[in-house]
Amino acid sequence: MIVIMKRSAIEKDVQSISKKIEAIGFQSHIIRGEERTVIGAIGTGDKERVKILINQDGVDRIYPISKPYKLAARSTKEEDTVIQVNDIQIGGGVFVVFAGPCSVESREQVLTTSEGIKSGGGHFFRGGAFKPRTSPYSFQGMGEDGLKLLADARTQTGLPIITELMSIDTVDLISQYSDIIQIGARNMQNFSLLKAMGSTQRPIFLKRGLCATLEELLMSAEYIMSEGNYNVMLCERGIRTYEKAYRNTLDLNAVPTLKQMTHLPIIVDPAHGTGRVDLVTPMAKAAIAAGADGIMVEVHPKPEEAFSDGQQSFTIPQFKQMMDELKPFIEAAGKRLVIV
Amino acid sequence: MIVIMKRSAIEKDVQSISKKIEAIGFQSHIIRGEERTVIGAIGTGDKERVKILINQDGVDRIYPISKPYKLAARSTKEEDTVIQVNDIQIGGGVFVVFAGPCSVESREQVLTTSEGIKSGGGHFFRGGAFKPRTSPYSFQGMGEDGLKLLADARTQTGLPIITELMSIDTVDLISQYSDIIQIGARNMQNFSLLKAMGSTQRPIFLKRGLCATLEELLMSAEYIMSEGNYNVMLCERGIRTYEKAYRNTLDLNAVPTLKQMTHLPIIVDPAHGTGRVDLVTPMAKAAIAAGADGIMVEVHPKPEEAFSDGQQSFTIPQFKQMMDELKPFIEAAGKRLVIV
Amino acid sequence: MIVIMKRSAIEKDVQSISKKIEAIGFQSHIIRGEERTVIGAIGTGDKERVKILINQDGVDRIYPISKPYKLAARSTKEEDTVIQVNDIQIGGGVFVVFAGPCSVESREQVLTTSEGIKSGGGHFFRGGAFKPRTSPYSFQGMGEDGLKLLADARTQTGLPIITELMSIDTVDLISQYSDIIQIGARNMQNFSLLKAMGSTQRPIFLKRGLCATLEELLMSAEYIMSEGNYNVMLCERGIRTYEKAYRNTLDLNAVPTLKQMTHLPIIVDPAHGTGRVDLVTPMAKAAIAAGADGIMVEVHPKPEEAFSDGQQSFTIPQFKQMMDELKPFIEAAGKRLVIV
Amino acid sequence: MIVIMKRSAIEKDVQSISKKIEAIGFQSHIIRGEERTVIGAIGTGDKERVKILINQDGVDRIYPISKPYKLAARSTKEEDTVIQVNDIQIGGGVFVVFAGPCSVESREQVLTTSEGIKSGGGHFFRGGAFKPRTSPYSFQGMGEDGLKLLADARTQTGLPIITELMSIDTVDLISQYSDIIQIGARNMQNFSLLKAMGSTQRPIFLKRGLCATLEELLMSAEYIMSEGNYNVMLCERGIRTYEKAYRNTLDLNAVPTLKQMTHLPIIVDPAHGTGRVDLVTPMAKAAIAAGADGIMVEVHPKPEEAFSDGQQSFTIPQFKQMMDELKPFIEAAGKRLVIV
Repeated sequence: MIVIMKRSAIEKDVQSISKKIEAIGFQSHIIRGEERTVIGAIGTGDKERVKILINQDGVDRIYPISKPYKLAARSTKEEDTVIQVNDIQIGGGVFVVFAGPCSVESREQVLTTSEGIKSGGGHFFRGGAFKPRTSPYSFQGMGEDGLKLLADARTQTGLPIITELMSIDTVDLISQYSDIIQIGARNMQNFSLLKAMGSTQRPIFLKRGLCATLEELLMSAEYIMSEGNYNVMLCERGIRTYEKAYRNTLDLNAVPTLKQMTHLPIIVDPAHGTGRVDLVTPMAKAAIAAGADGIMVEVHPKPEEAFSDGQQSFTIPQFKQMMDELKPFIEAAGKRLVIV
Repeated sequence: MIVIMKRSAIEKDVQSISKKIEAIGFQSHIIRGEERTVIGAIGTGDKERVKILINQDGVDRIYPISKPYKLAARSTKEEDTVIQVNDIQIGGGVFVVFAGPCSVESREQVLTTSEGIKSGGGHFFRGGAFKPRTSPYSFQGMGEDGLKLLADARTQTGLPIITELMSIDTVDLISQYSDIIQIGARNMQNFSLLKAMGSTQRPIFLKRGLCATLEELLMSAEYIMSEGNYNVMLCERGIRTYEKAYRNTLDLNAVPTLKQMTHLPIIVDPAHGTGRVDLVTPMAKAAIAAGADGIMVEVHPKPEEAFSDGQQSFTIPQFKQMMDELKPFIEAAGKRLVIV
Repeated sequence: MIVIMKRSAIEKDVQSISKKIEAIGFQSHIIRGEERTVIGAIGTGDKERVKILINQDGVDRIYPISKPYKLAARSTKEEDTVIQVNDIQIGGGVFVVFAGPCSVESREQVLTTSEGIKSGGGHFFRGGAFKPRTSPYSFQGMGEDGLKLLADARTQTGLPIITELMSIDTVDLISQYSDIIQIGARNMQNFSLLKAMGSTQRPIFLKRGLCATLEELLMSAEYIMSEGNYNVMLCERGIRTYEKAYRNTLDLNAVPTLKQMTHLPIIVDPAHGTGRVDLVTPMAKAAIAAGADGIMVEVHPKPEEAFSDGQQSFTIPQFKQMMDELKPFIEAAGKRLVIV
Repeated sequence: MIVIMKRSAIEKDVQSISKKIEAIGFQSHIIRGEERTVIGAIGTGDKERVKILINQDGVDRIYPISKPYKLAARSTKEEDTVIQVNDIQIGGGVFVVFAGPCSVESREQVLTTSEGIKSGGGHFFRGGAFKPRTSPYSFQGMGEDGLKLLADARTQTGLPIITELMSIDTVDLISQYSDIIQIGARNMQNFSLLKAMGSTQRPIFLKRGLCATLEELLMSAEYIMSEGNYNVMLCERGIRTYEKAYRNTLDLNAVPTLKQMTHLPIIVDPAHGTGRVDLVTPMAKAAIAAGADGIMVEVHPKPEEAFSDGQQSFTIPQFKQMMDELKPFIEAAGKRLVIV
């Protein structure tokens, strides 16, 4: 930590802070400038207790030196993490597509959509059986019946499935059915859930919270990794801003920035990142160009009858159209699109 | 719902939307203006399915008519909800103070602080036994041992206790010890947790999420209330903005606005709402003036040794000083400060 | 400036940065920690050129040491600035009220409102003659005719006037009529205008931009002060956030924070800070409690006929009602309300 | 406008609002639902005066029907606007690159950079002679001497020039030298300046404000167009959010959204949109993929010696490298890159 003293700080303040820093277990380095004094707290003591010095006489600001995530950091592991799910690899030069309906609604819906996604070139079939809904009066998902339908779809098409887990009391249930477990934006800092994810064997698809910083996203990945599960991929899905023209503001700056900060695969969700079906294809292209390892989109046989998120869902033909349009961009980005 | 057609919409589009609205179960009212046509979808059909019409030809925007929360709405229940905890009333013209350390750390810390808060005029003793921490490497709380210390403090001072619940597997445990259950900002949309809160008998202290709208906050209260627990109080604790001079931006506009939207008591947390101990007292005063029913603040015998949030914690003398300074504002606001 | 090196930085990187820092004219202090090296750039060289080192090998982050504003800083001048306008003092323990219509619309409107404000206890009469409007098709103000009406109101009631200046080609014109010149939120970083304000003799009422940081607000004050005009007051008027329940989010944290950062008087505008007339009085009370030196509100004889901002304007009786309600809070805050 | 009545509104309220709507000059259409009544205000009256009805008894919310911009709207003019500058066309399937240093600093800097941009394939040479700087103590630009150097660069390379205009007293001066006039983000709502731009003959490059909505950006374009200058291009340059990992958050959702809202060309500035030179190339690619008509980037012979924005400036070889990397994306997007 670095402690910047106020211009009005007196020698007594400087000495007092220096002693407190050493009492906490750091080495203290005093640098005296013309206008201000700066004190470095170097070493591996308890940073929380340095932060609190902000309330001491003469202290103006305190800055961190080291970053709080370790296992997720690129500096810890230089090469890209590649997550293998059945035959499909996520990360490492391959581009993958996660697609399916927001909610599992019926056998026919699931099977039709899954077939459409398979034939359109998608790699993972997504569908929600337990749904996080802002309103308690909205459709809450089919629960285990929905999971069974997802498994049936997998049997039929061979596409591995991904579904959202919302509560620790369904960890066993969902792990039994789903190839990848999704943690939604609203649970990105549900720390109990993150810890539970650390002890499953399933890869985790972790969505960025609505106003989470990239550092917080990595700290949440760190929660999972520090419990032993290193198969984490991160998903940028739009942040909340003042702009009302779209549901969220897709933050593509996050893609190349995360690529520097971490070795984990980065996926982009342009459906939630825009909330408008007409923006999904252009923003999927932009995500590829920014360096994403994959995208997640919503597909429904009849979006106008969807129980949720219909306004941002493709029809099956629209999905295939998007896949065709993405190809030249995937190629321009030097990524491979594997056919399953 | 109200559907605003594009200026370029043709008669066929208007007829098509009108028919779809009726197919969904609403009545359709067409209003033809000089520039645009507007279609009202009136009645009690499935609003989700009207929203999806946004992707149909000729549709420009869709606005809601009705609000999605009912039980929490002022229009459903005009008189203020008053929550009774032992002898103390929350809401209804009384001003209450929740105070205590961020984390329970030791018997001595808890008993000393609790005594200080009692003698300073506070009403509820707060302390975290299970802590939501951004980093997995930070202190995570003392768990049940911490709850026991809180109970001991209650025995000694008589102050009811409030502590945070982070996970559904601790509902029984925490309900056994705590008079009020706090749901933290990061769990405001942890819907599984909210539902579980609906079936406890404990009053719920629900904090606004870091970037939650007031409507979302009320929807989260609605989750709890729709499961049968009507004793919910809401807490404004600062939102995340671009401003870096403080940890969060305390949104006091929320106080009079929520007072119009809902009958539930409104508490303000100026400690998290600023993140700086030197801002807590002025913002506590401002909260009172804006109409809050109470405040929550952090108090620690030695903030510089606190395991968490020391930079925004009062010492016990500072807490008493604040209480003295608040009195003229509580009086100006026409609220009563009850001595327990 | 403080340069934090990456964990992966090698000795060559450290030496290279150290040399560059000295070439720019700073002294370089190297602190070697267990994990990282930190280099302090101490002295008074060109900070811009240190910032650019961010792109050099091995550099992770760069933090500033000193603050960029000087004349506006509390550390430069400890005692509060008091601005004298005729008999009225702004700052220094006095509480002042700026009130009047958003736009000057007619002689009768101006004279009626001005009389109402005088008799209600207001101190300054505000009214816009040149209006910044989002749409080119909205009413743009009466121009010089409006200024003449303001002057007539001053003659009649004795209240000094304040009006907004939008363009450097009206500096002479507006200076001739107005006692205080207002710079609106949208012009807070119109640097040409700020410089021009530095050479007028009129006090300046500088509004915070819609998403300006407090530091930027002080830098804009610094522009005016560095050209010779030290009579600057600052106005918090709400910032833009994601919350849609109000037009803007009034940031009252800014009040006690600015009081620490600067010696300039701080005014709050709860009309623009909320955009809703029903929120103005509670937020005016909150502003007082937070430590503001004054408020600015909108008053119109018939808000429902106002050319602009009617939704946030008081009627004259509502203004008087607010003034009565504010008194106990002004007293609680230890401020004086002078009767003119 | 559409007026949504409260659930508690009584018949008298409904009748009163309906009459007021007609008094303002609109037709009033009452739709009675089970829960609420909705009143449409149809026609071409004064919308400002309908908005104010929000404060009347029984009124809950008011929504707009029509959009406030006309000349800039895609619905007014379906085909893309193409702006011709000398031989170069902006918009209409062509991709253009604006590049150059943040500030004009010296003859050598300007000529060297301009040559580098020409040979790298750029189309317009940018450079600031009058600089908007947050601090009055930062370099403010070379003024007219800088404009002369830009003109010399044009003579040498043939590249048309673009420079920022900050103040109406330099309109003639800058129009005399510059082929395109840039209005910076901080002046996006400097309405006096926008009006002045309406009467120049130069194309205008209008940057989105730091927290401007797309609708406000279009309204600012409308200011220029309504005064007679239809040659306006819009530039997304990043918005201000809570995320601190980058200087701004580039909002690429804006690109396909603006393409629907307006016929004007859309340019993206990934240098300001990220503030970090290492993010410029990936985000330039993403901008192309999202559908931009061009990009603006910063280039300096020695960024580490730049007077401003060095941390986001390319060297000349880096610029050429970026141009090479962009080509496959420009091709994938179906745009033409013209060689000048």
